[in-house]
Amino acid sequence: MNPLNNEVIRVVSRPEAIPTAANFRKDTQAVPAVEAGQILVRNEWLSVEPAMRGWLADANNYSSVGIGEVMRSLCVGTVVASQAEGYTEGDRLMGWFGWQQYAVVQPSAVVQKITATDIPPSLYLGVLGINGVTAATALHTIGAPKRGETVVVSTAAGGVGSCVGQLAKALGCRTVGLTSTPEKVRACYEQFGYDHVINYKTDDIAGALQDACPDGVDVYFDNTAGLISDAVMPQLAIGARVIVCGTASISKWDPVPMGPRVERFLLTRRARMQGFILFDHMDTYATYVNQLEALIRAGKLTYREHISDGLDSAMHAIEELYRGENLGKRLIRL
Amino acid sequence: MNPLNNEVIRVVSRPEAIPTAANFRKDTQAVPAVEAGQILVRNEWLSVEPAMRGWLADANNYSSVGIGEVMRSLCVGTVVASQAEGYTEGDRLMGWFGWQQYAVVQPSAVVQKITATDIPPSLYLGVLGINGVTAATALHTIGAPKRGETVVVSTAAGGVGSCVGQLAKALGCRTVGLTSTPEKVRACYEQFGYDHVINYKTDDIAGALQDACPDGVDVYFDNTAGLISDAVMPQLAIGARVIVCGTASISKWDPVPMGPRVERFLLTRRARMQGFILFDHMDTYATYVNQLEALIRAGKLTYREHISDGLDSAMHAIEELYRGENLGKRLIRL
Repeated sequence: MNPLNNEVIRVVSRPEAIPTAANFRKDTQAVPAVEAGQILVRNEWLSVEPAMRGWLADANNYSSVGIGEVMRSLCVGTVVASQAEGYTEGDRLMGWFGWQQYAVVQPSAVVQKITATDIPPSLYLGVLGINGVTAATALHTIGAPKRGETVVVSTAAGGVGSCVGQLAKALGCRTVGLTSTPEKVRACYEQFGYDHVINYKTDDIAGALQDACPDGVDVYFDNTAGLISDAVMPQLAIGARVIVCGTASISKWDPVPMGPRVERFLLTRRARMQGFILFDHMDTYATYVNQLEALIRAGKLTYREHISDGLDSAMHAIEELYRGENLGKRLIRL
Repeated sequence: MNPLNNEVIRVVSRPEAIPTAANFRKDTQAVPAVEAGQILVRNEWLSVEPAMRGWLADANNYSSVGIGEVMRSLCVGTVVASQAEGYTEGDRLMGWFGWQQYAVVQPSAVVQKITATDIPPSLYLGVLGINGVTAATALHTIGAPKRGETVVVSTAAGGVGSCVGQLAKALGCRTVGLTSTPEKVRACYEQFGYDHVINYKTDDIAGALQDACPDGVDVYFDNTAGLISDAVMPQLAIGARVIVCGTASISKWDPVPMGPRVERFLLTRRARMQGFILFDHMDTYATYVNQLEALIRAGKLTYREHISDGLDSAMHAIEELYRGENLGKRLIRL
């Protein structure tokens, strides 16, 4: 069938720190034939994630993308041809289709079929995708916030953070967010309903946290590590839970950077600090998507998207993400 | 009644780092009268704990001893006079009686009555006291080791560590201990049954851990923080649990010392790091003592005691403890 041309973004080198366009190359090639058990998907939306920095590093990481491979990414696309049972032309899917126009994949690459027709499909890469599901799963399984507790969120306006703040608020918690620009501060108050927002670039973080959290921090949802975490740890309440979900503020882990030791804070506050990776929790993925869809339909969960057009724009997007230039879920529209 | 003289050790200053004899003063004073609701106890055994360093600091700590107060300590003693219901002359008690010959206390100071007559009473300050109960409670509630897992213990020959090693071994775990002298290495192998022992003063810690833990570290029972922990963290297995029980290797927490950041290890290994303080778990104290008594009676739990005589010897004992000069539970016999 395929005289179709496929533009793909390949990884050509490992970044020293934050991935830049220089770590990628765009190739054009023919779309391969669809064999038995495979599906051909035309991508409509590509995702850009902070985690991509980790997927491109080869140190201290759980799963690296190989040099020469198509850049790994979750995508939303439509089935163009199917030789796999259960998939039909026209089905809309969210899955691991990579930074490319077309993907020929096994069904195992599919995370979910999108059946809702009343919800914009791009949301399945953001607030209804791994961002929202990460927020909900990690907050529920590790944070377990109780009514009246104080929940602090780093990257408060980001794809995960903005969802965490809203979910915690809905549970009756006092929510405190840290973000980086006046525009994001405003979005945190007006759209994501934080009780208190700190601009970590201009405010005295420790002092502002003390004002915002007079009874200490019960749950810290950490997407950054670094200076923000260093200011939060001494303010943990007894029995606090720290969800280690990302380390966006640290650009390089080899060698391991130094920071203030956490042991004494964990000991004296009997606090828990725990790493979270969504891939360990895929068995409950659909359940959380359903809960979040219900909140979206009820108008109780607000989101923002930051969209750029065309495959070429993906190559710069990780870098922009780490510079904090986006407001909302970073997406590429094809 | 009381023309009795009482020698007491008072706190006269806060240590810069490790407490020394200069932080204490011995006074002689009359034993106060025993009033309604009180008990007069004659101390027979005093305890010396690593935690005393924390009780004497006033930074980052959960409960400090005031300047001028009698040094806080668990003790074993015998009731000499009682005006409190349920207590009779001759009762043997373990409780918060302080570094002194005689204590007049409320029943709330009593941790337990010692009724066993077939067990040396000093054990209720060590393997059957807060050391053993800390080991058992923290290992059970946070570590939850499963058969076949690898359990690493810092201060492997110490009062808590030696008990952790034996309890983990009895659960079918592979046990790896870190300690500081050839004599302690021998005790770890011969008395406490460790599968592998590392001398952290002479061995390459990271390399030795790698050899001893080819599948990574599932449970790390940490009594030290510092360089030992820095070597363990990169070797955590997926799903590891780190019990933060003490920070013996760090002499000062104000300002907070720097160390390699732990966030990325916790994230990539989905590991948990949690502080433990026994005082949060006093409701299960008696249950764990009963379990440990059964192991002692069955000859399945070995312990060592390091005893010195006389109240004066207490004043130097914390310092000696931090120099690693003891082998086994540090006790003062009166």
